[in-house]
Amino acid sequence: MNDSYLDQIQWTSDGLVPAIAQDHQTGQVLMVAWMNRESLALSIAEQRAVYWSRSRQKLWRKGEQSGNAQHLKDIRLDCDADALLLCVEQVGGIACHTGRQHCFYRRLQDGQWQTVEPVIKDPEQLYGKSP
Amino acid sequence: MNDSYLDQIQWTSDGLVPAIAQDHQTGQVLMVAWMNRESLALSIAEQRAVYWSRSRQKLWRKGEQSGNAQHLKDIRLDCDADALLLCVEQVGGIACHTGRQHCFYRRLQDGQWQTVEPVIKDPEQLYGKSP
Repeated sequence: MNDSYLDQIQWTSDGLVPAIAQDHQTGQVLMVAWMNRESLALSIAEQRAVYWSRSRQKLWRKGEQSGNAQHLKDIRLDCDADALLLCVEQVGGIACHTGRQHCFYRRLQDGQWQTVEPVIKDPEQLYGKSP
Repeated sequence: MNDSYLDQIQWTSDGLVPAIAQDHQTGQVLMVAWMNRESLALSIAEQRAVYWSRSRQKLWRKGEQSGNAQHLKDIRLDCDADALLLCVEQVGGIACHTGRQHCFYRRLQDGQWQTVEPVIKDPEQLYGKSP
């Protein structure tokens, strides 16, 4: 596969693009992370989500520690070519490092961000220590 | 309502946060755009999506030209407080400026981004001219 599909993406000045992961069965938006060229190419080659960790400045195979990988079902590019949508199968049913199903567990209610989703699994069990 | 919910967001160095709009009924991810403090506060006050247009450097009330506004049903913040998820009612059933239901109409197939969603309404009808 040549790299023209990579060249068509409008990367940020840091060489990144935001990637939304959505559960392919439930439609739930699981998380948003970032990809660079290498991580997107690896995601396609390995058919699993591989992100670029901005905080750690390294490739991050989703689930590499927790086991909660994301298997790729579909990848979409948006109209202005600066965002990706991944449809994934979320292994273990937990996408968030806090042990919740997904990362968007805080809802704006009465002017405050209120946690409205339960922890499914203790992060210590996911990572061997608190995240 | 005080501004503490705004202070809890991890804004980029440009003062922005990415906002994903999802159809509240179908779960379809419609688009990704950006918000600044003012646009988020206005979105909540007006109960419709108001974005910050990076290209035009101005507030952008989604649907102000096309009529295809997004009425807010729910706003979520993610675990690291640097992304928003809006559940919306998409007026007119068209979120994309190309006249498609949503912006993620290109799928990676055989190493190429291929358009897999139809135009529902001619952009000239939406905007009075081609976008």
